[in-house]
Amino acid sequence: MATKSLEILIDEFNKLPGIGRKNAVRLAFHVLGMPMDDVENFTKALKNVKDNIKKCSICGDYSENDVCDVCSDELRDSSTICVVEDGRDIISFEKTCKYKGKYHVLDGKIAPLSGMTPDKLNIKSLLERIVKEDIKEIILGLNPDFDGDITSTYLIKLLKPFGIKITKIASGIPIGGNIEFADIATISKALDSRNEV
Amino acid sequence: MATKSLEILIDEFNKLPGIGRKNAVRLAFHVLGMPMDDVENFTKALKNVKDNIKKCSICGDYSENDVCDVCSDELRDSSTICVVEDGRDIISFEKTCKYKGKYHVLDGKIAPLSGMTPDKLNIKSLLERIVKEDIKEIILGLNPDFDGDITSTYLIKLLKPFGIKITKIASGIPIGGNIEFADIATISKALDSRNEV
Repeated sequence: MATKSLEILIDEFNKLPGIGRKNAVRLAFHVLGMPMDDVENFTKALKNVKDNIKKCSICGDYSENDVCDVCSDELRDSSTICVVEDGRDIISFEKTCKYKGKYHVLDGKIAPLSGMTPDKLNIKSLLERIVKEDIKEIILGLNPDFDGDITSTYLIKLLKPFGIKITKIASGIPIGGNIEFADIATISKALDSRNEV
Repeated sequence: MATKSLEILIDEFNKLPGIGRKNAVRLAFHVLGMPMDDVENFTKALKNVKDNIKKCSICGDYSENDVCDVCSDELRDSSTICVVEDGRDIISFEKTCKYKGKYHVLDGKIAPLSGMTPDKLNIKSLLERIVKEDIKEIILGLNPDFDGDITSTYLIKLLKPFGIKITKIASGIPIGGNIEFADIATISKALDSRNEV
């Protein structure tokens, strides 16, 4: 029989994405056993994230300053913009240490069924950047799923008239992946996008 | 590139049991998108759990009062005590709505290799209850793993002289489980503990 305070904390953990009831119980009991200082650091971290983080006025990524680290980095190639759905994707791209251009966060993707129409995305600010800055290439770095593809198609149509090079990240069998266990759509895509060697 | 506040929150989530780095990133971004009120409710729940919950002076389970709800419930059979490792197990037993006796929380199990010796467990208070209260049966409700079995064996030896009935919850193939996929130890146990029908 969980006590009331514990029950409330279990419910709070349970509200987080991917945390089911059993896991929530486990986490709440873990918090019970944590030293008070650690719990305070955790609650402080939760509040600080909300208090300190805003959106970069240029690319729309989360930032503690008015302009994020990537946008204010003069060593990065500002003629290339990689368009992503959200800030998490930037973390993944940055991990590769391969991309040296800038980003633009759409803050979602077009999903007509859930009411996500193009006007709800940061597309206007992308167009403004294209008009103002000297952009040579737009890389569409959206997830290769249904909504991501719709969004890419929409952006291609919208951006074509600007006469800038538009590219899209490649889809195919993941490195280290197994053709046997890949889904049909991925295998078809890998075949279609085959490269001469 | 995660901002500093975000990085700190990711680390805090990452410290929780069963939450890896990827999941921690996902949760931290979820918090970023939560309304401030919800984040405040969450931090309040975390602190309240530490501020309000102590241990029941009788059974050792977590409780908001000096004596927990189970121990203070006069409708429950106080002549039967189910000995468990921790409070989480009580939640599981209570869910069955089958057990109407009391509990005793050992707060761990004997694990010599990790330094958990019997003197670190709530065994003394169990003996006191047996001496003071009119106990007819002790149910050993410990997990059927290596340390749980050591603890059960230790308690059986310790409690036998009191002349009380000592029982142990059954082990075997889980209901709805599959013999084909059960491990050898479980199948052996299920065979050993077979019942005449």
